Amino acid sequence: MLDDAEITYVPPEKLRQFSQKCLAAAGVSETDAGIVADVLLAADLRGKESHGIARLRRYVKGSASGEINAKAVPQIIGETAGTATLDAQNGLGQPAGVKAMEIAVSKAKKTGVAAVTVKNTNHFGIAGYYSLLACRSGMIGIAMTNASPQVAPTFGAEPMFGTNPIAVAIPLRDAPPFSFDMATSTAPRGKLERMSWYGEPMPQGWAIDPDGCETTDTVNLIKGLKAHSGHALLPLGGAGELHGGHKGFGLGLLVDLLCGPLTGSKWGKRVYDASGAQLGHFFIALDIEAFLPYSVFDENAKTLLQDLRTAKKAKGKERIYIPGEKSAEKLKERTRMGVPVTPAVMEDISSLGRDYGVSL
Amino acid sequence: MLDDAEITYVPPEKLRQFSQKCLAAAGVSETDAGIVADVLLAADLRGKESHGIARLRRYVKGSASGEINAKAVPQIIGETAGTATLDAQNGLGQPAGVKAMEIAVSKAKKTGVAAVTVKNTNHFGIAGYYSLLACRSGMIGIAMTNASPQVAPTFGAEPMFGTNPIAVAIPLRDAPPFSFDMATSTAPRGKLERMSWYGEPMPQGWAIDPDGCETTDTVNLIKGLKAHSGHALLPLGGAGELHGGHKGFGLGLLVDLLCGPLTGSKWGKRVYDASGAQLGHFFIALDIEAFLPYSVFDENAKTLLQDLRTAKKAKGKERIYIPGEKSAEKLKERTRMGVPVTPAVMEDISSLGRDYGVSL
Repeated sequence: MLDDAEITYVPPEKLRQFSQKCLAAAGVSETDAGIVADVLLAADLRGKESHGIARLRRYVKGSASGEINAKAVPQIIGETAGTATLDAQNGLGQPAGVKAMEIAVSKAKKTGVAAVTVKNTNHFGIAGYYSLLACRSGMIGIAMTNASPQVAPTFGAEPMFGTNPIAVAIPLRDAPPFSFDMATSTAPRGKLERMSWYGEPMPQGWAIDPDGCETTDTVNLIKGLKAHSGHALLPLGGAGELHGGHKGFGLGLLVDLLCGPLTGSKWGKRVYDASGAQLGHFFIALDIEAFLPYSVFDENAKTLLQDLRTAKKAKGKERIYIPGEKSAEKLKERTRMGVPVTPAVMEDISSLGRDYGVSL
Repeated sequence: MLDDAEITYVPPEKLRQFSQKCLAAAGVSETDAGIVADVLLAADLRGKESHGIARLRRYVKGSASGEINAKAVPQIIGETAGTATLDAQNGLGQPAGVKAMEIAVSKAKKTGVAAVTVKNTNHFGIAGYYSLLACRSGMIGIAMTNASPQVAPTFGAEPMFGTNPIAVAIPLRDAPPFSFDMATSTAPRGKLERMSWYGEPMPQGWAIDPDGCETTDTVNLIKGLKAHSGHALLPLGGAGELHGGHKGFGLGLLVDLLCGPLTGSKWGKRVYDASGAQLGHFFIALDIEAFLPYSVFDENAKTLLQDLRTAKKAKGKERIYIPGEKSAEKLKERTRMGVPVTPAVMEDISSLGRDYGVSL
């Protein structure tokens, strides 16, 4: 494990500007580069480092090489009163995601609820960014995306779909939103990568080897995932059906059905083929005021959450966390202290910066 | 375990009529009694016996005693182009649920997506019935409900919310729908009750004792749940955060927020208090054709599912099940063979029938 002395704390605004400048140097417009930089920073500030500045390289290199269309402008290719379908034109997922959720919010103001799909898109960062976007307009936001295949179906023995996250955010007055952003796999890939660096074993129920048997060996898992040898992550609930693995599988598959077939994009193991990422995203905005006065909802929701906080604790536990509380605390702390950057990530982004003439 | 010789196979239509007549004798209108009978039968036919005829007594007795308002007519108390809010008037959950999903489907035909809430309602049977209802109109259906408190939050040690199911159904041409109906707890209460009858232990990770420690003792768990002694089920993912228990907790809590605070009904441990059940339901209907031609969606969705079916199997496993396949096979078999009724359930419904002058 790293010594705290090796960590550099970088002021958030500095990190944001660095990302934006690197992306702009790779051919992305100022506006789109700013959006991607915002989404990356939001991840780092909330403690989701695997989706933060550590991923800048892939967006910059992808944009520079043309693998991602740096000049794409997402197009509305169909709409009804409460829905829209966007084609991201193989552009960055973040500007497409922001545009999609903004359309959903604007439509939901009239119809009470709206759903927007995005096809032909790329990795969009943390799903929670988009659900939280709806909260700024007083709405409940839901965001999903499919992703590169890493998870095996229940009783399967190869990666067939992504960690396909589901994010939901619900605005609360004078309090951090209820914010829930879960991979539908038991454990996130990023965490397993970090464990593999230190040779740390993982618990049973997180991943399988190419025979479909549970493994605890993170080093071979990460190697296997990279080599497409058949190693795979397990859905939430683990292997088989005993602990509800079929539920996690169902949730992951549901996300793929809504983000692949319903958007008109690719799905499962067919994403990231020769024709590009071709991911899909799915968004819902739900206007609380269409159902009841916001103040009534807000009071009741807060009472429910407070009931849970004050419930009897399990032996040895002192606190029950509401989804969103841990990340809201990290956000507060890191906004003040700066974003902790490890030596490996610092070296990676410094080298990236040198390539594009940008210094941190 | 029961010997097959002890099981009576009852023709589905006979079971449906029996339920309808008992309910009508308890003061429920013919139409509403028919809806409840349909929902009960759908559960039995799909192998969800815990929500089938075995539950008839509670609806009949509740309606007869006035605990449930047998004469209730659900009222629309608010609506926008894509949303509606219903007050079930403390009536049976099934007619209110059917009406709500019908409204959602009818609105989604115009707006592409619609969301309908129901407040002041009672137990509505299997959530999957309502999501499947949307499929009959070619739409994706989502149904949720809160329920009596049985599940502890992550790091908690008492039941604070229900098994709060999420059901999603997606129509497919010439094939059973993708149908996903999961309790957000690891294991369903009904299964644990059956295990406790035989003194069968459960695996770790399903439930906790009043100290919040994992237990495998089904007999004491069921006793404890009935006595409100602090025993509780665990969210999907089990105890703590190691296997993603906080994700199951987040999902269950999300269902409660949408079904309680958003509907204007009760939530968490406040349902089933002195003022009645006061449950809430939440429904979404999503029109596939608002996004792309149904035939395109259908072909892509089926290819995704077929990809999964033909994926490499784990050692010793022969088949990967798509959500809805197992229950579709049960439905086919039981429509032909009849619904298997155990001696205990047969005795219970026969005695109920005698009380209301109805014979099976």
